[in-house]
Amino acid sequence: MGAVLAIDACARGAARYESGMKIAPTPARLAGIAALLLATTSASASIPPPPGAAELAQRGDDIAWSITEDLTTEIGPRMAGTEAEAAARRWAVARLKAMGFANVREEQFDMPVWVRGEEQAWLTGPFLPQKLAITALGNSASTGAKGIEGDIAYYESFDALVAAPEHLVKGKIVFVDHKMQPTQDGSGYGYYGRGRFNGANIAAKKGAIAIVIRSIGTDAHRNPHTGGTNFEAGVKPIPAGAISNPDADQLVRQWKRTLQMRTNETAMGYTPEPLRMKLMLTPQNLGTKHSGNVIAEVPGSDPTASPVIIACHLDSWDLGTGAIDDAAGCGIITAAAKHVMSAGQPRRTIRILWAGAEEVGVFGGKAYFEAHGKEKHAVALESDFGADRVWRVDFKLPDSAKGLADRIAAAVMPFGVVRGKQAANGGADIGALVQAGVPAVDLAQDGTRYFDLHHTPDDTLDKIDPAQLRQNVVVWAATLAILADSTDSELP
Amino acid sequence: MGAVLAIDACARGAARYESGMKIAPTPARLAGIAALLLATTSASASIPPPPGAAELAQRGDDIAWSITEDLTTEIGPRMAGTEAEAAARRWAVARLKAMGFANVREEQFDMPVWVRGEEQAWLTGPFLPQKLAITALGNSASTGAKGIEGDIAYYESFDALVAAPEHLVKGKIVFVDHKMQPTQDGSGYGYYGRGRFNGANIAAKKGAIAIVIRSIGTDAHRNPHTGGTNFEAGVKPIPAGAISNPDADQLVRQWKRTLQMRTNETAMGYTPEPLRMKLMLTPQNLGTKHSGNVIAEVPGSDPTASPVIIACHLDSWDLGTGAIDDAAGCGIITAAAKHVMSAGQPRRTIRILWAGAEEVGVFGGKAYFEAHGKEKHAVALESDFGADRVWRVDFKLPDSAKGLADRIAAAVMPFGVVRGKQAANGGADIGALVQAGVPAVDLAQDGTRYFDLHHTPDDTLDKIDPAQLRQNVVVWAATLAILADSTDSELP
Repeated sequence: MGAVLAIDACARGAARYESGMKIAPTPARLAGIAALLLATTSASASIPPPPGAAELAQRGDDIAWSITEDLTTEIGPRMAGTEAEAAARRWAVARLKAMGFANVREEQFDMPVWVRGEEQAWLTGPFLPQKLAITALGNSASTGAKGIEGDIAYYESFDALVAAPEHLVKGKIVFVDHKMQPTQDGSGYGYYGRGRFNGANIAAKKGAIAIVIRSIGTDAHRNPHTGGTNFEAGVKPIPAGAISNPDADQLVRQWKRTLQMRTNETAMGYTPEPLRMKLMLTPQNLGTKHSGNVIAEVPGSDPTASPVIIACHLDSWDLGTGAIDDAAGCGIITAAAKHVMSAGQPRRTIRILWAGAEEVGVFGGKAYFEAHGKEKHAVALESDFGADRVWRVDFKLPDSAKGLADRIAAAVMPFGVVRGKQAANGGADIGALVQAGVPAVDLAQDGTRYFDLHHTPDDTLDKIDPAQLRQNVVVWAATLAILADSTDSELP
Repeated sequence: MGAVLAIDACARGAARYESGMKIAPTPARLAGIAALLLATTSASASIPPPPGAAELAQRGDDIAWSITEDLTTEIGPRMAGTEAEAAARRWAVARLKAMGFANVREEQFDMPVWVRGEEQAWLTGPFLPQKLAITALGNSASTGAKGIEGDIAYYESFDALVAAPEHLVKGKIVFVDHKMQPTQDGSGYGYYGRGRFNGANIAAKKGAIAIVIRSIGTDAHRNPHTGGTNFEAGVKPIPAGAISNPDADQLVRQWKRTLQMRTNETAMGYTPEPLRMKLMLTPQNLGTKHSGNVIAEVPGSDPTASPVIIACHLDSWDLGTGAIDDAAGCGIITAAAKHVMSAGQPRRTIRILWAGAEEVGVFGGKAYFEAHGKEKHAVALESDFGADRVWRVDFKLPDSAKGLADRIAAAVMPFGVVRGKQAANGGADIGALVQAGVPAVDLAQDGTRYFDLHHTPDDTLDKIDPAQLRQNVVVWAATLAILADSTDSELP
């Protein structure tokens, strides 16, 4: 009779899972089953435990894929502060409600909006005009519809531009070279990225009329990589663009040839022929507009326990459909939360943050911190590095959580994840929380090909490997299940 | 004394090679050395034969690379009939003269010129507008600067469009799907390519207002593949474009979703929501303009022997710099001819044809045939399939040349080339000659990744693997040396 009851309980559990309803929390259910196993004899071996979140994900997750496919197909590019991003929020609220999450809502905030205009460039001399594949960087000034033309001042790296004397930069179109190399952990982004983050600001301060950089990207396709650049307060923005790697290669080849082409030769030396560029970028600042975060929750069984927060971002750059950056991240974290919910109510609330306006300045992450930074959070995680497999787990947890970290590392090990030796650093949208002391776990994704696609027109659904996407969900589900059931002595 | 003479002869040969001068033809030289070897004793093993053309190429060819780099860097895109193509011809004449070839000249011809304008497209409904990566096909009509908008009629293949009843096509923007799959021998081009070659003509005849096809390409980048399309006499051209594979995937996903979106539902069934596209293509026909072939020769020692003709094409599509299509081909054949010339004057003249206006209708090949088709040619070869390695050799030779084919197959075998079982088919620019009965040899290049790049903005120098380019030159040099010394009993 005990055995019959147990089977009934399992059947009911399964029925609840299938209908997406919450069932009793895992520990309690497991305890009940353990008691039944003790009470039965020969039948015991035939009663499997109900599936955990990771097992549910392994059995056939298509949640992450369908979120990624639907968002990128029906909404597509969703630049922060635009109607497309607003449509994405409406879509997100409807989807998260339909999935059975609680407290689904939009939390609006204001932000300055910059939008792309036309963008064209040519190498105009001394050779025949050749068109370049160019894109404006976020916050770029406009050249006006007629464009500008000027001599190129070539710098082999950001450091070389920083070191350049002002008189060589003034009045020129600065070009910053330095080809990004791929790394598994994405660690080159900060190093190579300086040319984009701060190159325009440096060039503007030295009097350049514009800056064009080699894309911060590791591919060899004629799709330039956009991304934000920033000007210090008081520095007047200049037009700023990025050309693709093949175009940068071409510019460099032409530039090397111009060095051999002598004009004004004297006994003291010669002046090389200048390499010239025409540039037409017409982006606009639209002023302050609304954006917003979309938030949803899996309510925990213990109302006194602080929540686990998991984040992705809903906005994307406008050139592609934002599949790897970051529809997939939203798919991954949401699928994991759904599997945890399906496996049984967790002790802690899981709060899902689909942040708005990340790409153009982490406005959503800042708005979340302003609204919720004073609330206690148990731990924060983010998925915003594509859709390739999780290969490493890193922790930044209190000493009290040593056993918790061990349990997570053991749980993800079967899926090919190694334990890192460095502290987790969180991510952009949870950055303020982590900086304020919230513990963090990083499920680090393989970034070897991430910067082939990052911020380009090529960030589209076809770049996502469904098998690797599922591995992400499995690893996230395993981790999230453990974190959401962690004790108050382990996490704040 | 005989030995001393032999060493002298070798030294003289080497000096001549280094200065780029012609030396005595290989068979004669080899015969002389053989005689010396018989006449000497212990010293004989230390006298190597002078290098043949293939060996010279192996020792360090950079001719093919430098032609490819210089042409794509200094001229860049060179659309048939434009000033860029004319500049390329001037560049070509100067380069071929500087390399020491004889009879370098331009042979002009006239041709109709079509040039690209602006090109933009959007999926406009029922979802939010999403921009597509599109390019006009050669001979496309213009939509006018305001563009056109219409419902999409989806066809899964060219065959499905052919089979479609007129009333379903009329007034629509036709979309032709059918993703190209890569093959080593490029044999899918004809099959998949029908959608581009003839799709617009079929759609126009059925009353479509425009046609957009999935690019004839095997990549997954947002760089559409251009190429020519043709309208029958009497058929009024319609706007015709190609979108990239990721954009075609997106269109298909949206189209499938619209099928589920019911408008006008009745008991008899329902009408699905139409998928709509806005299209703006503004190409122009510029009328008749000049183009031209550039021809150069390695004069043979026997003025009565018919020449070997080797061809590539100098023009390119305008989206990339035409590195693999076909600067590399010109580099390969010219480097091979130069190595044969350096190794010693061949018996037959080698005629190098850098054809003009191939891409837009093989006008250069036709002009060559009109001017020279009545002259006897020993054999024709062409390089116009990228820069990846030669993997197979095919022959279409008279029965008298069986031994010749065997010698070539044996000569290229060490470089990884297999002997094919099918007849050589020549190539576009030598097509008229081969059709008229001129024998042909195909040095078939590996095309596995050719259609990733073909006719896209991505056809740039960085896509060329220098090692594979050199293998091409070595194989060509080996083959050309044998053909150029073939007898009159072997080839016409």
